[in-house]
Amino acid sequence: MIGIFDSGVGGMTVARAVETLLPDYQFIYYGDLARTPYGSKSSEAIIEYSIENTEFLIEHGAKVIIIACNSAASVASDILRRKFTQPVFEVISPAVERAVTSTVHGNIGVIGTRATIRSGIYDLKIKQLGPKLRVFSQACPLLVPLVEEGWLDARETKMILRKYLTPLKQKQIDTLVLGCTHYPLLKDLIEHRMGKKRTRLIDSSIEAALTLKKYLNDNPVFCKSMQRGSKNKYFVSDITKAAVATAEKIFGRPIDLEKV
Amino acid sequence: MIGIFDSGVGGMTVARAVETLLPDYQFIYYGDLARTPYGSKSSEAIIEYSIENTEFLIEHGAKVIIIACNSAASVASDILRRKFTQPVFEVISPAVERAVTSTVHGNIGVIGTRATIRSGIYDLKIKQLGPKLRVFSQACPLLVPLVEEGWLDARETKMILRKYLTPLKQKQIDTLVLGCTHYPLLKDLIEHRMGKKRTRLIDSSIEAALTLKKYLNDNPVFCKSMQRGSKNKYFVSDITKAAVATAEKIFGRPIDLEKV
Repeated sequence: MIGIFDSGVGGMTVARAVETLLPDYQFIYYGDLARTPYGSKSSEAIIEYSIENTEFLIEHGAKVIIIACNSAASVASDILRRKFTQPVFEVISPAVERAVTSTVHGNIGVIGTRATIRSGIYDLKIKQLGPKLRVFSQACPLLVPLVEEGWLDARETKMILRKYLTPLKQKQIDTLVLGCTHYPLLKDLIEHRMGKKRTRLIDSSIEAALTLKKYLNDNPVFCKSMQRGSKNKYFVSDITKAAVATAEKIFGRPIDLEKV
Repeated sequence: MIGIFDSGVGGMTVARAVETLLPDYQFIYYGDLARTPYGSKSSEAIIEYSIENTEFLIEHGAKVIIIACNSAASVASDILRRKFTQPVFEVISPAVERAVTSTVHGNIGVIGTRATIRSGIYDLKIKQLGPKLRVFSQACPLLVPLVEEGWLDARETKMILRKYLTPLKQKQIDTLVLGCTHYPLLKDLIEHRMGKKRTRLIDSSIEAALTLKKYLNDNPVFCKSMQRGSKNKYFVSDITKAAVATAEKIFGRPIDLEKV
């Protein structure tokens, strides 16, 4: 079984991509709504929560883990890989690889939460693959609350996006990594602001699911050990109406969240 | 010693009012930054966290508790009063009393987080004191993230305030309760939007401190048992630069946060 965790329901954009790209596999999702959001917390706190979330998924049968939260992936990936024997996938490396192969002029933009941008992980990983590339990062801490409010097309959201994105536009980036699993819900607005033809958006949720798909195809023995066909499960550590509404917005259908 | 808790650093507006109004008393503050914010969590989660926070304060010598978080006060006050022998003060009742005695035309507005407004506590308490009063409530979930971003005078904040406050203005309220400890930091903008002469703002932080002061004056025996003179302490369950910056903004001086 594939185990996916996030600080809340934003990571369901990854679950949805897994469902679409790997329909034969079962997954369990864990959203830590009782402590959401992670993006404004310290690295120490995020690491502690990530270990607990991974333990929960493994106890419930996960044989492979996806960290579906950029804030957690940016500070806890290496620690989880050392601590657990299960393969650990995350949302950052696949998006970085795609960005590096996509850019034409070498100017890459990255947007994310405060924790993700503060970690410098995108900058580091992009420059490991392409030392001459130029990376321009922008923390966008208000976008998660705006998405969770459902203000996906509000004038205020457009104004705040303009404030965040204008400095990146001025740097003439041709590739922009959406470094937070909530941001795909704002894809249309971001694309409109950046110019659809001028800037290619990289959706870290889709890239993570593609990478897992490739791994499973390349490892048929491991792959056989994975459970299939059964129903996917969604666990959360707290439940609110707003979270249920966001989950339904992501999947486009009712989602049954189970509080644990 | 006075024990004050909040989901984060917003409750420091209460601590500051206590410091100003009761300079002879020592207090300890506990900010649950590891699980902040409470306003978007379920009532069950908020109750559990409030009990833990109160236990922490009592273990550290608190003889009286102030719930400096409207979300926690709205769902956990009665439970804490039943569970603990220490007197429990909170930010809602004092603000309600002030609002009821302040209103001229009987139209009172209340703004707060989603959890506070959902609880209906202000509506209930105002109508207990004045059954003929009319209460108009508005959840303003984006204001806390905006304050925590430090966007205290940003154009985007003004626009979002206009969106939230226009329906209340149309109801011709003459009194507006700031039902969240973060909101005093937006007092000037809110006053400007509502009209300084038309609407009186009720700051729940100041009202809570005034109520505690009255209690201590009225109970000299209890009062004598309280520790004085020593330095106030600020404990937090997580620490970030943004939280330190907000704390300093509230007090107007550096504040030493101790992570526990």
